[in-house]
Amino acid sequence: MVPLAATARTTLKRLPKRGSYDRAAMYRILDEALVCHVGFAGEGSPVVIPTAYGRSGDTLLLHGSAAGRMLRTVAGGVDVCVTVTLVDGLVLARSAFHHSINYRSVVIFGRARVVDDAEGKRAALRAITEHIVPGRWADVREPHAQELKATLVLALALEEASVKTRSGPPLDDEEDYTRAVWAGELPLRVLPQAPVADARLVVGVEPPPYVRAYRRPGSGSV
Amino acid sequence: MVPLAATARTTLKRLPKRGSYDRAAMYRILDEALVCHVGFAGEGSPVVIPTAYGRSGDTLLLHGSAAGRMLRTVAGGVDVCVTVTLVDGLVLARSAFHHSINYRSVVIFGRARVVDDAEGKRAALRAITEHIVPGRWADVREPHAQELKATLVLALALEEASVKTRSGPPLDDEEDYTRAVWAGELPLRVLPQAPVADARLVVGVEPPPYVRAYRRPGSGSV
Repeated sequence: MVPLAATARTTLKRLPKRGSYDRAAMYRILDEALVCHVGFAGEGSPVVIPTAYGRSGDTLLLHGSAAGRMLRTVAGGVDVCVTVTLVDGLVLARSAFHHSINYRSVVIFGRARVVDDAEGKRAALRAITEHIVPGRWADVREPHAQELKATLVLALALEEASVKTRSGPPLDDEEDYTRAVWAGELPLRVLPQAPVADARLVVGVEPPPYVRAYRRPGSGSV
Repeated sequence: MVPLAATARTTLKRLPKRGSYDRAAMYRILDEALVCHVGFAGEGSPVVIPTAYGRSGDTLLLHGSAAGRMLRTVAGGVDVCVTVTLVDGLVLARSAFHHSINYRSVVIFGRARVVDDAEGKRAALRAITEHIVPGRWADVREPHAQELKATLVLALALEEASVKTRSGPPLDDEEDYTRAVWAGELPLRVLPQAPVADARLVVGVEPPPYVRAYRRPGSGSV
């Protein structure tokens, strides 16, 4: 795959050894995470809003109410920064200074374009729904014309972006390794709990396999 | 407690019934989450960076390398937006349109000030360490003067901020409730896995209780 674009914005200045422009690594992170944080300039000051997303090939897809502030601003073609972060574990070192968090993150820069044809919007909403709950789209009522109209869909090219990760054990100062304090990693995983059926469920309907055995792709996390 | 400040930036325009200016609710979210997303204008375009944080009373504390781009820019007194998001569950409706995510989020605006006295920095690093792993500070080597010097600490007042949450079952269109499709919530929890001891651990040192029984405050989530 073609690597991501290393521009002035995506060049990793701090701890560059933790960074990469590996497109496949970026896709794995985007496909595993559930929400992104969208940053843009809103009326003069920065605004960061969490939202769901989907991915279709080399495009990140966002959606929301056509009446909402966030997507309306972003739809105006302004610069955005979309960041996706997975927390994999806590890194406990022998010194306070070397404590850390194991994580995988993607930072994407660009300008989003509005997807305004009905078929493109429908495909994007399908990608977002299937990103969150793979297998769900085929089971539910598809959006009708009025719902499509009320939904703003934006597409952001996955081009100017970078990946940053930390993994593995703590890295302590050599003289601290003799300290008799526990050190290591405490892995964290996002895990599904028992599904909670809606009170008005049609009698006899059971949770489908994609709910009962819900797992995120990748890492064994959710 | 004094409510948060409803300014032009924090006034909730979209789905205001999901929002609040409840300071106690904000503290609970901040105390449970592990990372925040910091948004600022970096060389003309927005930048969103994930990072750890801590809280001391009505102040959010950030730290990082004094050589890093993010904190150096934010330390310059520019406007920032810091957003913290907890994903509580997936909301499966009978229609694609009404699918949602249960979440709790805090959006904070302001300008950070540099904490530059040694005692203030030490207290902030303690608050951040204890935020991530309560009980840890007493067991580890404290930062020495050179480490404090290499660390930039920023403080952001928890004043101009808002809370937004969604919880509960899906809300479907009335005519969709007769559909024989499973609907409800799939709760998600961040849970610790078995601790991974560092390869160079002093022989015989066992994980302390705050590692073995690690839990985040609040909700039963990690």
